[in-house]
Amino acid sequence: MSLDLYYWPSIQGRGEFPRLVLEAAGADYRDMARLDGVEGGGVEGMMAFMEGKRGHPVPFAPPFLVDGDLLVSQSAAISAYLGETLGLAPDDRPGREWARALAATTSDLTAEAHDVHHPVGVSLYYEEQKPEALRRAKEFREQRIPKFLGWYERLIETNPARSGWLVGNRLSYVDLGLFQVAAGLAYAFPRAMAEADRRFPGVAALAARVRETPLIADYLASPRRLPFSTEGIFRAYPELDGGA
Amino acid sequence: MSLDLYYWPSIQGRGEFPRLVLEAAGADYRDMARLDGVEGGGVEGMMAFMEGKRGHPVPFAPPFLVDGDLLVSQSAAISAYLGETLGLAPDDRPGREWARALAATTSDLTAEAHDVHHPVGVSLYYEEQKPEALRRAKEFREQRIPKFLGWYERLIETNPARSGWLVGNRLSYVDLGLFQVAAGLAYAFPRAMAEADRRFPGVAALAARVRETPLIADYLASPRRLPFSTEGIFRAYPELDGGA
Repeated sequence: MSLDLYYWPSIQGRGEFPRLVLEAAGADYRDMARLDGVEGGGVEGMMAFMEGKRGHPVPFAPPFLVDGDLLVSQSAAISAYLGETLGLAPDDRPGREWARALAATTSDLTAEAHDVHHPVGVSLYYEEQKPEALRRAKEFREQRIPKFLGWYERLIETNPARSGWLVGNRLSYVDLGLFQVAAGLAYAFPRAMAEADRRFPGVAALAARVRETPLIADYLASPRRLPFSTEGIFRAYPELDGGA
Repeated sequence: MSLDLYYWPSIQGRGEFPRLVLEAAGADYRDMARLDGVEGGGVEGMMAFMEGKRGHPVPFAPPFLVDGDLLVSQSAAISAYLGETLGLAPDDRPGREWARALAATTSDLTAEAHDVHHPVGVSLYYEEQKPEALRRAKEFREQRIPKFLGWYERLIETNPARSGWLVGNRLSYVDLGLFQVAAGLAYAFPRAMAEADRRFPGVAALAARVRETPLIADYLASPRRLPFSTEGIFRAYPELDGGA
C-alpha cells in the first residue's frame, strides 16, 4: 500500500497533523512534495492535483493524502482516516465519531491561532495588520486558549478509561493533534502557555507523554521534523504574547 | 432510534447544516433546545451537556447530536454521520472520506464568513471592529468567495457522474452544506453573490435544485426554518457587501 502525503515542503503547517499520525504508526509513507527526484513528487507534483491535472476530486488546499484510489484533504479528515486505518483511533463507532469531532475542534483552535497574526486577511502581510493582531492576540491569550485547553483538560479528567489520553485507553490521533497544537502554542505564546501548563496539568502531561513516545521521539529528533518558524501557522511574535 | 439535535434555538447558525440533513432524509428527530416542555429539552437541557452534567464526552460547543450512546459535535462531523446513516452520503470508502473533507472545507468557508464581521475577536461586538471588518470584507468578497465557489464549480464540472451534484449521482449531505452556505452568502452579500451566480452557474443550479427538493422545500416553508438574521453567522450589513 502506498501512502502519499502532499504538503508544502518548508513548513510544518497543517501537514504536520497527518504526518505525526504516519510517524506514530511507523507507517511506510512518502512526503511527496519534499521528493523532488521522484515521479509525481516535488511542489510541481502537488500542484498538479490542485490544478485538476490528476482528475477528480480536486483538493481545495494541501495537505492531502493519496492512498490508491482514495484522496482525502483537510488535516483533521486525513488524520482520522489514517488513525482509523493504522490503529491509532477508537475501534467502536461512537468512539470514532467523537474522535472526529474532537479533531475538528483542534482544527478550529489551529485556525484561530493562525488568525491571531492574520485577523484582517490572508492576502495581507502581518506587518499590514499589526494593530488588529495585537487586539486579537489579547483575546486569544486571555479567553480562547483557556477555553480550549480547559475543555481538553476536562475530557482527559472525565475519560472513563482514566488513561491520561483524550479517548479510550491508548494513544490515538487526537492526542497527537493536541500535542502538536500545544507545541505550536508554546512556540508562539511561551508566556501564555507557561501559565496554561500550570492551569491544565493533564494537557501538559499528555503532550509530554506524546513527545516521549519512542516513534515520535525519533521523529522529532530527525530532519523530517521541520522547525516552527514565522512562516507557519504558529508564529513567535513576542508582542502577540503580551511581551515587549 | 432517537436522534436528538442540540443547538441554540433562535438562530440557524451551525446547527442548520445537520438540521438540513435530518430534514432532507425525512428523519424522525427532536430539536431539543427548542423543546422547553420536554425532559432534557430547552437551552437548559443543552447546557447540561456542555457543563459536563451528562457525562463524557463533553461537547466544546453546539451543535451536537445524541443518538443512543453516541454523541458527536461539530456541524461537518454531525452532517457526515447523519449522511452516512440516513442514505445521504456516498456508499464507498473513498467517496465517504472525500465527502468528509469537502464538508470540512464548507465549515472553513462558514467560519470565514463569520470572521468577516468579527475579525478581531468574538468577545467584541461588530460595532467595535467595524474598520477591520470593512477591510476583511473586501478580501472576502473579492478573493475568498471566488476561490471557494470556483472550487465547488470545478468539482461539479468534473464529477465523473456528471450529475450536477458534488459527489456521485444523487443528493448528499455535502450538497446540502453548499446550499446552506450559498443561501447564507446570498443573504449577507447579495451584490457579491449576484456576480458569483453568473460566474459559477453550476453552484447556482445545485443550490436551486436543493431548494426545490420536496422535503427541503417543505422544510424551508415551515416555521422550523428560522430566518437569517444579524444574530447569526451570515449577517446582512450592507457596508460589508461593498454597498453604501
